[in-house]
Amino acid sequence: MSRPKPLSGFPELAPDARIVEQFVLDRLRETFELHGFGSIETRAVEPLDRLAKQGEIDKEVYAVQRVAAEPGSRAELGLHFDLTVPFARYVLENAGQLAFPFRRYQIQKVWRGERPQEGRYREFTQADIDIVDAGTLAAHHDVELPLVTLGALERLHTDLGVPPVLMRVNNRKLAQGFYLGLDIADPPAVLRQVDKLDKIGPDRVTALLTDEVGVSAAQAASVVRLAQISTPDESFVDRVRGLGVQHPQLDEGLELLAEVVRAARTHVPGRLVADLKIARGLDYYTGTVYETELVGFEGWGSISSGGRYDSLATDGRTTYPGVGLSIGVTRLLAPLLGRGFLRASRSVPTAVLVAVESEESRWDAVAVAEQLRARGIACEVAPRADRFGKQIRYADRRGIPFVWFGGADGEVKDIRSGDQVPATATAWTPPAADLRPQVGAAG
Amino acid sequence: MSRPKPLSGFPELAPDARIVEQFVLDRLRETFELHGFGSIETRAVEPLDRLAKQGEIDKEVYAVQRVAAEPGSRAELGLHFDLTVPFARYVLENAGQLAFPFRRYQIQKVWRGERPQEGRYREFTQADIDIVDAGTLAAHHDVELPLVTLGALERLHTDLGVPPVLMRVNNRKLAQGFYLGLDIADPPAVLRQVDKLDKIGPDRVTALLTDEVGVSAAQAASVVRLAQISTPDESFVDRVRGLGVQHPQLDEGLELLAEVVRAARTHVPGRLVADLKIARGLDYYTGTVYETELVGFEGWGSISSGGRYDSLATDGRTTYPGVGLSIGVTRLLAPLLGRGFLRASRSVPTAVLVAVESEESRWDAVAVAEQLRARGIACEVAPRADRFGKQIRYADRRGIPFVWFGGADGEVKDIRSGDQVPATATAWTPPAADLRPQVGAAG
Repeated sequence: MSRPKPLSGFPELAPDARIVEQFVLDRLRETFELHGFGSIETRAVEPLDRLAKQGEIDKEVYAVQRVAAEPGSRAELGLHFDLTVPFARYVLENAGQLAFPFRRYQIQKVWRGERPQEGRYREFTQADIDIVDAGTLAAHHDVELPLVTLGALERLHTDLGVPPVLMRVNNRKLAQGFYLGLDIADPPAVLRQVDKLDKIGPDRVTALLTDEVGVSAAQAASVVRLAQISTPDESFVDRVRGLGVQHPQLDEGLELLAEVVRAARTHVPGRLVADLKIARGLDYYTGTVYETELVGFEGWGSISSGGRYDSLATDGRTTYPGVGLSIGVTRLLAPLLGRGFLRASRSVPTAVLVAVESEESRWDAVAVAEQLRARGIACEVAPRADRFGKQIRYADRRGIPFVWFGGADGEVKDIRSGDQVPATATAWTPPAADLRPQVGAAG
Repeated sequence: MSRPKPLSGFPELAPDARIVEQFVLDRLRETFELHGFGSIETRAVEPLDRLAKQGEIDKEVYAVQRVAAEPGSRAELGLHFDLTVPFARYVLENAGQLAFPFRRYQIQKVWRGERPQEGRYREFTQADIDIVDAGTLAAHHDVELPLVTLGALERLHTDLGVPPVLMRVNNRKLAQGFYLGLDIADPPAVLRQVDKLDKIGPDRVTALLTDEVGVSAAQAASVVRLAQISTPDESFVDRVRGLGVQHPQLDEGLELLAEVVRAARTHVPGRLVADLKIARGLDYYTGTVYETELVGFEGWGSISSGGRYDSLATDGRTTYPGVGLSIGVTRLLAPLLGRGFLRASRSVPTAVLVAVESEESRWDAVAVAEQLRARGIACEVAPRADRFGKQIRYADRRGIPFVWFGGADGEVKDIRSGDQVPATATAWTPPAADLRPQVGAAG
């Protein structure tokens, strides 16, 4: 075998970076569970026709087929490219057994055959939360989900030093109602142009609206003025009202978005704004839409997005509306790890290396290790009965802070300070900061 | 969308079964980390030629190709079918950055396009531990790995009520040396027949050995007698010696296997036997081999297997020997869950449902929930301000043990006993047994 090369777009973490990722995933899981979300995992593959959008299978989907398949036969399965499509299928398949509203989180890898570039991966991890109900889903869940997500991201900020985030929220009904109130015939066509506002600016969007969508100059001006409204508080409501457009859907959208902003100001102050240009593509979202950037790293794109879908799934008799948010774990972590912004204090879980004096006494060292482990202290026994200096270097290379010498009544050395003290394997405990690898912003 | 049907061989767990699986995976991880194994994850795909065995790609491998690929073009990637092949590649690819001996655990899904049947899945989770070194790997790791694995499985037995296990251990060198001592020319051919002992019995194996492999009747008799030796202690050494065969490799194998058995009797008594018929296929193993059955459920096959490979990987200059054991998490859990032997005490993480008196007071309920969560108590707020009886039934259906009424100075009801007591959201704590879902053998 020759030395293999990495596959572009399929990032693999070194052991110390993986410790950071585990730390993040553990905290996400804990936050989700504290809010009553249960875990599910779905299989990696779906029938290809379920992965189709508007009847067409995206060319970036990975098809999966046994090598044993007939040559030339068509693949029937594909790797999931998000966790929403599989979740919708899971809900339909298990509707009879699930208790609605059903709250689930799902942390899994997904695959997209995109052209690899920074921030774009072919295999990456997402952490999704969704609430889905049968028939109707209460509007307050649109307020709840961003609070849970922002709470999770805030823990990564305070516990790890991940940069703070800003979530931008809009409501499809607000824009839709506004356009209808302006007597615009084709709101989705307008939304498609508004979605380009950040990229091409208001003048070119206005031109596209009049030239391509065929709205009047006055209508286009109102549309662009609406999209330019962004406020960290409820003042956006008055600013929209000031544009003088009336429609029941507009009222509905304003009210719900105001409630999201109000709740966020209480629970996660400074982390959420109403931003009326946010469109989030045109797929399944029908109400609130969310996207989230890392403050100071806006160019990395949205690290957490989602929205409300009035019909996540339907089996013809029952419709299942949902609201969900997805955290792009790889998209968030890969650049932070790659740039060295986050690091683990060591590359192994081990807190103590138990030194071995001679191969004959190896089992005495194992007995010490067992006593430490019984009290939750991760340790390993030195692999070779080298001279102690070499065993200490073994620990040093891995960042293991302590080396144990002798039997159960022995001595323990902090190899950073060089301090060595008598210690008993049934009683000695390392300082809390050394018990597990610490994860944080690089100093 | 019509109601979808499960895909045969791709098991998905219901939320309560997933809680059991998480409980198991958490304990495996904790045990592995206490022994100084660090986590890695490898990408799901490998170049197809790396998945080949002896130059041939198993027909059960799943090939992966973008839908956008040229029609008729050959796939270059496949889903990994185990965690050993990817780990070997990871070691080669990152050898310059890893500290050897390198101890890693890896818990991931793998895929095999086998015919689905009970105990055989197309997607399943494995939990592997391996120690790999550059150049040579000390023999004591062959003793260490089964102790770690049996320790992990013992925790599942004591903490969850998973049946106890019996690990059967052999050593390739022992058999190989014995055959060479008997002047048998083709030891692998003999081993292939011995591997059938459990299935077809000693008489038919003897016949195959004389008729197909071409050994003498006396040689065949010795081979079968060796394979029938199985002891829970070191007495197998004398029994082998009693067969009167001499060879240095036999001595080496006996010594190492005796050390494994000796250590296991001290650290995990009753859970390991020397069993000289164990062959574990003929792939990469070159020394100790392990397989493990659930006591009382031997028909389910091995739930944890592995062995020593003198060359896990090589880049032409350096050889990386390793020893590893893999726990078949899905293979272990799916039948236990399917037969109802293991269950979770509830289907959600939630310990407390905070009741909502009216939609106007929903945010008061949210404030109570936040105070409980701040102290690690998982809770959710009732989705609808129904009458309280209905809210209690909502909790009951999910197994949520407590319902909170009123504000921060409110009352909490244990819905199992009906007891309702005054409680303060900043101080009240549920009994430890109710804080998280409990997992155990079904009563």
